[in-house]
Amino acid sequence: MSIIVQKFGGTSVGTPERIKAVAEICTQTKKREKCNLVVVVSAMGDTTDDLVTLMNQVTDYPTPRELDVLLSTGEQISIALLSMAIQKAGYEACSLTGWQAGISTESVHSKARIKSIDTKLIKKLFAEGKIVVVAGFQGIAEGEITTLGRGGSDTSAVALAAALKADRCDIYTDVDGVHTTDPRIVDKTGRLKFIAYDEMLELASLGAQVLHPRSVEIAKNFEIPLRVRSSWKPEDNGTLVVNNPVSDDIISNNFTERKSKMIEGQRSVRGVALDRKQSRLSIIGVPDEPGIACKIFSELSHHGVSVDVIVQCVSQDGHTEVDFTVNRDQAEKAKQELDIIAKSIKAQRTAIDNSVVKVSVVGAGMIDQPGVAAKMFKALGDHKINIQMISTSEIRISCIVHESQGEEAVKCIHEAFGLSEVNS
Amino acid sequence: MSIIVQKFGGTSVGTPERIKAVAEICTQTKKREKCNLVVVVSAMGDTTDDLVTLMNQVTDYPTPRELDVLLSTGEQISIALLSMAIQKAGYEACSLTGWQAGISTESVHSKARIKSIDTKLIKKLFAEGKIVVVAGFQGIAEGEITTLGRGGSDTSAVALAAALKADRCDIYTDVDGVHTTDPRIVDKTGRLKFIAYDEMLELASLGAQVLHPRSVEIAKNFEIPLRVRSSWKPEDNGTLVVNNPVSDDIISNNFTERKSKMIEGQRSVRGVALDRKQSRLSIIGVPDEPGIACKIFSELSHHGVSVDVIVQCVSQDGHTEVDFTVNRDQAEKAKQELDIIAKSIKAQRTAIDNSVVKVSVVGAGMIDQPGVAAKMFKALGDHKINIQMISTSEIRISCIVHESQGEEAVKCIHEAFGLSEVNS
Repeated sequence: MSIIVQKFGGTSVGTPERIKAVAEICTQTKKREKCNLVVVVSAMGDTTDDLVTLMNQVTDYPTPRELDVLLSTGEQISIALLSMAIQKAGYEACSLTGWQAGISTESVHSKARIKSIDTKLIKKLFAEGKIVVVAGFQGIAEGEITTLGRGGSDTSAVALAAALKADRCDIYTDVDGVHTTDPRIVDKTGRLKFIAYDEMLELASLGAQVLHPRSVEIAKNFEIPLRVRSSWKPEDNGTLVVNNPVSDDIISNNFTERKSKMIEGQRSVRGVALDRKQSRLSIIGVPDEPGIACKIFSELSHHGVSVDVIVQCVSQDGHTEVDFTVNRDQAEKAKQELDIIAKSIKAQRTAIDNSVVKVSVVGAGMIDQPGVAAKMFKALGDHKINIQMISTSEIRISCIVHESQGEEAVKCIHEAFGLSEVNS
Repeated sequence: MSIIVQKFGGTSVGTPERIKAVAEICTQTKKREKCNLVVVVSAMGDTTDDLVTLMNQVTDYPTPRELDVLLSTGEQISIALLSMAIQKAGYEACSLTGWQAGISTESVHSKARIKSIDTKLIKKLFAEGKIVVVAGFQGIAEGEITTLGRGGSDTSAVALAAALKADRCDIYTDVDGVHTTDPRIVDKTGRLKFIAYDEMLELASLGAQVLHPRSVEIAKNFEIPLRVRSSWKPEDNGTLVVNNPVSDDIISNNFTERKSKMIEGQRSVRGVALDRKQSRLSIIGVPDEPGIACKIFSELSHHGVSVDVIVQCVSQDGHTEVDFTVNRDQAEKAKQELDIIAKSIKAQRTAIDNSVVKVSVVGAGMIDQPGVAAKMFKALGDHKINIQMISTSEIRISCIVHESQGEEAVKCIHEAFGLSEVNS
């Protein structure tokens, strides 16, 4: 019997009415696909906020351990209510907290990573014909309740799918799939029917809020097909995230259709992403000696600073300027470290600029398609948007621009690649 | 080092402000008594009601298993918040859910009894100098979350005290101790400084809501001194429940004072209780044969009906009437069973009366004090309150009266025994 994992986020189970609607989706899936079904849920809409509000009236600095004990109640409420709703709909269901579901994590609080999942109990419940409802976002480490931090429930769902060797993991959310860019920026976005894990990873880490990169990475590693779909329109297939959207067996039904499109040329750019949380740091007047760049970045990495885009340019007088961007949360810390490094390598000075953003185009096909970069730069140039820094990977081109021009940059690039028309 | 268990009910931890006040009580106790401290808490005031309201919007008939998963979140929220508040006050604390605290119960939901408690982790936390905050009302059975039903948090606290061989268990509540009767009925009630387990058991089961009989029974069996006290007036010593309030070592400090009072004569009646949940059943025209009463009551017991007061009277014509009372929740069921029994023993008919209540006086000393019953009956007679049935035990005399006269009965008996003056 096939195994399907479904995950519903906080908005999807935000009210008793919504919980009943989700129960309907679960029971319909069970009925239609005759599968073994695991349903992973987040805390109901406002529950976490309410718990934090309550907490703030007691303390400003909760210990991470007690915070996990507190917040994990949110999902526990959801699993009980959803199980009851499924039972009321005439199906057998059993709720499991993180520790009951055998989800073992690292022994840290607030942001534990999943180490392993003991699926014995879930399989026993499958054998009893039950829909298993699991609390997302939480696990257990040495008898302690842990939580997984950001993207936690997605991660729980995909990790369960991997441990159970599930046929598919459906991530139900409040959007109808992965779009060619943020619909809050561009009025008419395209919706992707398929996307590769790597593309999704780039989009996710570049600010598309649909899926957390952690969950996409697990899905990629264990080759779990992910479907991002709307809990408000469950009949819509949403976006399927797979290894290779063109050749993958999982989409064999659509293969002919896809192939005919390919003959006309595969669209190389799949999406445009905007990352607003960038800061640019500069170290100026660096002596142009071998190994200096290595020294700078290994020191920063040693202090836990993740560097994103890097540009180095050598001036005629033998001095170098090194520019790079970091996540804005780390900017102050990075600046402090950079000042220390500047002193030790006898650089002239350092600078910081918090008014930059990163605009990126993503697409696994662009490696075979020359001219993508040129098209992107032309679109920006036509709109008088100055490119401060550029970085590229095999499936991505990113430009650092001034934050006042970030949304305009997304719009004009989206238009230049004709992404509004995408529905593939 | 001595071990103290403190228990705080839902009202005592009803708001963030109250949680901070409770943290203050805990840390003061830790500081003053230099003890190992376990704090057992209920769900915050309205939490359980809120969860039930939420649930009712999803289903009318929750399975007991999922109901336990749902409701147990209430105490989990309390333990996290109280631990945070204690930590903020500068003391080390660690919260434990029922399963973390090693509280094993029977494998039934909604009303499980505690089987055993593995205190290993609690003792480890003691050794680390931590105040241990345990979720009341809940336990674990074969990996399943269970709840203890009515009086659950008191039961958790006393059971933990027994398992840890604690020196004392303090039950903090919203009244300042055990009173001579319900202050909602009588304006000026006396407050008892000491009471025997047996007296407390009778009062508890007769409708005094201070302590659940389950917890008193455990305390009695393991000889754990219980102190019922107000979380609003923590400096007040409240009422101490012990084996023998006169001779017990635990109160040796007060021994001289008590002894001097005894010379003047121990007050025989300690309290007056009103049980409003009584129903009277009658089986009329029963053939007066040996073994008939046995047949009636063993049949009822076989069907799970608990019988309270029993009166049997034989008429001149050789027919007997048997009257008895049951808890009103069981009245309909008892009536159905009684009808079947009546048929089988060829009794004439049965009757049911739901308009009766039970008024009782309780006191361990009354066995040595003739005249208590007479004084009680006179008080009722003087107020023209008709006594329908009477039952007595070694430490209790109960009268069944019409419900319209129940409160008046309590008032006049309370006055007849001069209980307003009690402060001992």
